[in-house]
Amino acid sequence: LLPYYNIDDKIVVVIDVFRATSAIITAIQYGVKEIIPVKDIEDALEYKHKGYITAAERKGEVVDGFDFGNSPFAFMEEHLKGQTVVLTTSNCTMAMLEVKHAKKTLLGAFTNITALAEMLDRENDNVLLLCAGWKNRFSLEDTLFAGALVEKLVSEYGFNTDCDSVLTARELYKVARHDMHSFVKRSSHRHRLGHLNIEKDIEYCLKHDQAQAVPQFDGYSVKLAESLVLE
Amino acid sequence: LLPYYNIDDKIVVVIDVFRATSAIITAIQYGVKEIIPVKDIEDALEYKHKGYITAAERKGEVVDGFDFGNSPFAFMEEHLKGQTVVLTTSNCTMAMLEVKHAKKTLLGAFTNITALAEMLDRENDNVLLLCAGWKNRFSLEDTLFAGALVEKLVSEYGFNTDCDSVLTARELYKVARHDMHSFVKRSSHRHRLGHLNIEKDIEYCLKHDQAQAVPQFDGYSVKLAESLVLE
Repeated sequence: LLPYYNIDDKIVVVIDVFRATSAIITAIQYGVKEIIPVKDIEDALEYKHKGYITAAERKGEVVDGFDFGNSPFAFMEEHLKGQTVVLTTSNCTMAMLEVKHAKKTLLGAFTNITALAEMLDRENDNVLLLCAGWKNRFSLEDTLFAGALVEKLVSEYGFNTDCDSVLTARELYKVARHDMHSFVKRSSHRHRLGHLNIEKDIEYCLKHDQAQAVPQFDGYSVKLAESLVLE
Repeated sequence: LLPYYNIDDKIVVVIDVFRATSAIITAIQYGVKEIIPVKDIEDALEYKHKGYITAAERKGEVVDGFDFGNSPFAFMEEHLKGQTVVLTTSNCTMAMLEVKHAKKTLLGAFTNITALAEMLDRENDNVLLLCAGWKNRFSLEDTLFAGALVEKLVSEYGFNTDCDSVLTARELYKVARHDMHSFVKRSSHRHRLGHLNIEKDIEYCLKHDQAQAVPQFDGYSVKLAESLVLE
């Protein structure tokens, strides 16, 4: 639905909870210098041949020939500190590349929800939440995070909205908040990713505030948002 | 999001609760023979010049020069019995024309929810619920009806689903069901239509089972679904 919104004058928050934005937040938190998102496997391979560290995920799995995929745990490695990583994923990289012309693009997930909300409060601007979804379809986990962020922005920071999809995301989060894990188990991700044995990732991605990092996409690569310094 | 779904093998239910599908259901229930949906005001004017009864709505209001708009009450008139009406509305006619290639297209709203659910049960086929929305955006009232229909189909008729948007619509309806009217008051329709003094229409459109009619769109016009006879 992105084409129906004007984003030139808005901060866009890209959301792909399972697992791309969660993984990128982890990467930036653990000291990865920058992440270059690319759309196709072919583009990623070209970078790989040039010597870049490359990560690629399709259908939830690491693509053959790449260093790793989009598991947050893969980005916690010491040898990635200060490095540039090229990344392609099923949904998130496409979402990022679609919002190149946004006023500012930030990445969000449960793992950085408080740091993100604080930053949005400081920015004091209009915000559009872009759920990456799954193959252009609605996804439960991304909408749940959008709802969680809205709940925080409205109840703690005085943001307001008259958008029906925002209202719905917030109501959904309120229903699910007390047992996110079993709520999410009912979602289609179970069918998509259930066979991949990524239960540990799912659990991590649903945890609040594992990071203070708010990654920002400048149209070319993702880095720690300019205004932030990690302690 | 319609382009991302295959509808050749599915029954599509078009939903535009405020007020087009509610109005069309009323029309068919009250004896209108058929309704021809057209996309543009110009097309509707052409029909008018040929002598057709024409109804046109934009931004919630009757368009100048037309007989009426999409208020359900406008379709309860005795003189419309047995007549053909040409209709253009902001969102619903476009939605209908987009699903011409569906296996079958039915129209739904709270006013015919039980008759529709019974018919879907008899049809025993895959169903896609198409919320017309508002200018290509998500709308609360259409999603609430989708949720209400899902709740009925799943809990009373044994339908099942693993679609996240269906799950979300159902959860939203469960939150709202005990006070639909005040829940809907929080929606963007208040801002869109609040100044139009259509409170009576809104109230009517939220009532269950005001009609036994299930309208069917055959790609050209909307009539009572073939398998149905109104008592």
